[in-house]
Amino acid sequence: MLSGKACRLGGRLRSCFETPSARLFISSSNMAKSKFEYVRNFETDDTCLRNCYIVVRLDGRNFHKFAEQHKFTKPNDNRALGLMSRSARSVMEELEDIVIAYGQSDEYSFVFKRTSTWFKRRASKLMTHVASQFSSSYVFYWKEFFGDQPLLYPPGFDGRVVLYPSNRNLRDYLSWRQADCHINNLYNTVFWTLVLKGGLTTAQAEDRLKGTLAADKNEILFTEFDINYNNESALHRKGTALIWEKREETTTKRMKLPNEEEKEVPITRSRRRVEAYHCDIIGDQFWEEHPDILEDDNC
Amino acid sequence: MLSGKACRLGGRLRSCFETPSARLFISSSNMAKSKFEYVRNFETDDTCLRNCYIVVRLDGRNFHKFAEQHKFTKPNDNRALGLMSRSARSVMEELEDIVIAYGQSDEYSFVFKRTSTWFKRRASKLMTHVASQFSSSYVFYWKEFFGDQPLLYPPGFDGRVVLYPSNRNLRDYLSWRQADCHINNLYNTVFWTLVLKGGLTTAQAEDRLKGTLAADKNEILFTEFDINYNNESALHRKGTALIWEKREETTTKRMKLPNEEEKEVPITRSRRRVEAYHCDIIGDQFWEEHPDILEDDNC
Amino acid sequence: MLSGKACRLGGRLRSCFETPSARLFISSSNMAKSKFEYVRNFETDDTCLRNCYIVVRLDGRNFHKFAEQHKFTKPNDNRALGLMSRSARSVMEELEDIVIAYGQSDEYSFVFKRTSTWFKRRASKLMTHVASQFSSSYVFYWKEFFGDQPLLYPPGFDGRVVLYPSNRNLRDYLSWRQADCHINNLYNTVFWTLVLKGGLTTAQAEDRLKGTLAADKNEILFTEFDINYNNESALHRKGTALIWEKREETTTKRMKLPNEEEKEVPITRSRRRVEAYHCDIIGDQFWEEHPDILEDDNC
Amino acid sequence: MLSGKACRLGGRLRSCFETPSARLFISSSNMAKSKFEYVRNFETDDTCLRNCYIVVRLDGRNFHKFAEQHKFTKPNDNRALGLMSRSARSVMEELEDIVIAYGQSDEYSFVFKRTSTWFKRRASKLMTHVASQFSSSYVFYWKEFFGDQPLLYPPGFDGRVVLYPSNRNLRDYLSWRQADCHINNLYNTVFWTLVLKGGLTTAQAEDRLKGTLAADKNEILFTEFDINYNNESALHRKGTALIWEKREETTTKRMKLPNEEEKEVPITRSRRRVEAYHCDIIGDQFWEEHPDILEDDNC
Repeated sequence: MLSGKACRLGGRLRSCFETPSARLFISSSNMAKSKFEYVRNFETDDTCLRNCYIVVRLDGRNFHKFAEQHKFTKPNDNRALGLMSRSARSVMEELEDIVIAYGQSDEYSFVFKRTSTWFKRRASKLMTHVASQFSSSYVFYWKEFFGDQPLLYPPGFDGRVVLYPSNRNLRDYLSWRQADCHINNLYNTVFWTLVLKGGLTTAQAEDRLKGTLAADKNEILFTEFDINYNNESALHRKGTALIWEKREETTTKRMKLPNEEEKEVPITRSRRRVEAYHCDIIGDQFWEEHPDILEDDNC
Repeated sequence: MLSGKACRLGGRLRSCFETPSARLFISSSNMAKSKFEYVRNFETDDTCLRNCYIVVRLDGRNFHKFAEQHKFTKPNDNRALGLMSRSARSVMEELEDIVIAYGQSDEYSFVFKRTSTWFKRRASKLMTHVASQFSSSYVFYWKEFFGDQPLLYPPGFDGRVVLYPSNRNLRDYLSWRQADCHINNLYNTVFWTLVLKGGLTTAQAEDRLKGTLAADKNEILFTEFDINYNNESALHRKGTALIWEKREETTTKRMKLPNEEEKEVPITRSRRRVEAYHCDIIGDQFWEEHPDILEDDNC
Repeated sequence: MLSGKACRLGGRLRSCFETPSARLFISSSNMAKSKFEYVRNFETDDTCLRNCYIVVRLDGRNFHKFAEQHKFTKPNDNRALGLMSRSARSVMEELEDIVIAYGQSDEYSFVFKRTSTWFKRRASKLMTHVASQFSSSYVFYWKEFFGDQPLLYPPGFDGRVVLYPSNRNLRDYLSWRQADCHINNLYNTVFWTLVLKGGLTTAQAEDRLKGTLAADKNEILFTEFDINYNNESALHRKGTALIWEKREETTTKRMKLPNEEEKEVPITRSRRRVEAYHCDIIGDQFWEEHPDILEDDNC
Repeated sequence: MLSGKACRLGGRLRSCFETPSARLFISSSNMAKSKFEYVRNFETDDTCLRNCYIVVRLDGRNFHKFAEQHKFTKPNDNRALGLMSRSARSVMEELEDIVIAYGQSDEYSFVFKRTSTWFKRRASKLMTHVASQFSSSYVFYWKEFFGDQPLLYPPGFDGRVVLYPSNRNLRDYLSWRQADCHINNLYNTVFWTLVLKGGLTTAQAEDRLKGTLAADKNEILFTEFDINYNNESALHRKGTALIWEKREETTTKRMKLPNEEEKEVPITRSRRRVEAYHCDIIGDQFWEEHPDILEDDNC
């Protein structure tokens, strides 16, 4: 616990209350505050350029160590991935205007629509709020994914903001992150297969993979371990894309209409909710199937 | 839970594994990634100007509602204030180079020393990491302060970065925040005394205080409720300043020295730890008593 | 002229040359410089976001006074407008990647193509070079437009940089400037017609125009002075757009081909040169007729 | 000259005047403008951090070639240096709040006082105005320094803004520029002495100087050419510092006092003017002799 110590001699503010000049002081406290208010002018305006997509990306801090200490399974821990996406969903539900989020490993990217005026487009507010909401959610929902296994300490994430002026640029950003997911997951899959099933030490596995291309890695999996990488979990190979979808929801309500008996009446309403996809977002198909995510370029 | 849906038709990446061109694809995945990597050049450099104090301030999002829902006591809830300071301490212990933090109500300011090179002084990294560590700590330590009362949802904080070139500017910033604490706490103290002890409605109390100066508020407390505001809790009147202090710590260890019996030997070592102060930081005394917080201006 | 004064006592650097330690000093002058070089790290990176049009706009400083002192004709001085466009052409010929410039009154806007890497897209370099080249050209070409009328003092311009992510945004920017030209020129045309032909004082003319709409102004010109505003000079009504155009240029060269007499041979080559347009750039026609100015949005 | 071409078919704006809908259009021209005005929001705020010195440095563009073409004398051309300082003085007289300027070779640095609010401290305005005023002055005053030798084309300068939070940082910046002047001028002096007096080719001179320290260069000058570098022109060795100085100026005016004959009366008044110094500004002496240049750090 914090140890609260009183000032040894008492500060100027405090002691003046004990003297006849106390009232003098008090009546001038607003004046005192206004004397300091000039410091507000040192804040800089970091408004994001209009008509650009605003991307906030979070990365786990020291997650290698965090994964060790919390015994994450190798090469992927579904509980950890689930918790990341649960936290990302919490961010999307809290902040308006996020049209898509993409996550893999210990990172998550959030894309605000180009016309968003959320937080007046102030970069610092956008990224700190995302980082904060994500982090508090990570601890809050831990138990849903890890059950009785305790969280040993509060984890940290850092973030950044990047702007993309065109749909092409934004899609290339997301493609870049998914290509990264693919490369890392293929490597990790082979690496841990060599270690866990092939009996190699981690040093031997590292050695074995030095200089190999993706094709070589695929070959090792297939010929030595009878694993078709393509049949591995889409969650691991593709990461997770979260988008908003409208659904019709039908509930019933007990109502009494005129000249009728009271009865159950079905009520259908359209609700927006966050859906998760584990599929390719590099090609055109995903975007053709979800035309509402991106806005027109020439606006 | 997130609902994971497989892509209906499968993305381009996935399907190509099922064809003879799979290897072709795989061997070019690194190439594919490098094709997208140009998007990194859209990141902007937000390095903080050298030789300036870097202040990160966090503010609670919708904490009025959060306080209501978690039944915070009025006008101050010591559990909530304690949790804020506990989370701030977690930030100080995690991030290097924070020389002082000051908090009151639902806000906390963190001051990095002017020569800090933490995160290469990148503003976005500094503020998101502070926001993240603070928020995850807030949830993590909730139980220490609120016991069995459950946290209903993960709270959010937003942040900003401000630079101060001189010691005077930095001290005026902290003075501004403490003057704000004073003004708000005096108002809230009188307001809730009028309501809780004086039997006024909140509307009546608001009316009663309209246009009053600090002196008037002090007078109301003293003449009507026999309360000397100056005797109220320093934690509430002054907020909390966290600084690093060196302490001698003496422990004992069982040792066996040559030609002696094994015995308890006292071991003293100097340890840096975070200490909390609830005192005036506007005047010179606090700064004279802690000369290590600020660096020389002309460096 | 500047009066150069020697330091009264001589600086440290100078005097040390006169002592035996001179060589010590000299051999350490590189070291001395490197000791100061840390100050370079105070420069900030102001790279313009990629894939956006970069617009640099210049505005004359105190040109109202400058126009008075150099007896510019009212409401428009063709010499002054010609000099502005001549200076703008000098900028376009000096800096690569400007695809269009638009000027009116004492302002000129320069548009760099979205993929430009000129000056590594550093905003400060781009705008200062434009401001500098424009200003030196203004003085340099003064005589071409004002003949023997002397330039009384060196004029100043200030500038700014604005980024536009889409073709629509850029065209709207240029439309905004041309709409401004139209509104000002209509006002000025009526105002000075009332004064110069109608015999009103400037105060009376101002009064007469207070609250009038464009239609009213047009009406005054037509019914009272028999002027059809639409027949006024396009240069004044539309301002000036400068763009690059390819032209075939045919010159002749005296050559001796084998087995022939020496003779004049026509040589045709394609040359890019700056052309000026005084036409509407708000509608689509201008852009359809010059499809090379803008690049595709989705790149 | 610019070739002004009319649009072939006339733009939308123009042609509508010829139809009955002309008035409709005209009355909506203000509306049209306001439709485009959203583009102003794309401007970013580039206000300089308060309480920091603002340094604008200009550098000549391609001045190596410019010097060749205008036959500047080697290693220093006093006319060119004089013109640089004359232009710098013009900048100081035009822009408020410049407390010192320092120039050498084809560069000049201008220092705005830390409390300056000129142009609301907007970086883009400050640097473009300095670049513009300097460049137009360079052409304007050319004749004063180069007489009948014509200026062949308008020269260009580029600029940048750097902020310095403390007096130490600012002085180190200026020291860095003067150390640069010293190193370059020593090199150039020896190099051109070897060429012009020693009969070496430029390649030979370059070779001879490769790897030499300052002491070696000084030695060459002294033993081979009997030149004491320290006796070389201070203008070349130290560059030029321009500062404001107050002077008493006494003039006489013919006045008639009561009960006296009309007579010449001396009138003394204090005037601020720009003075040039060619002395060491690295050591303390210059700053002690001119205590008004810098403001106190802790303000």
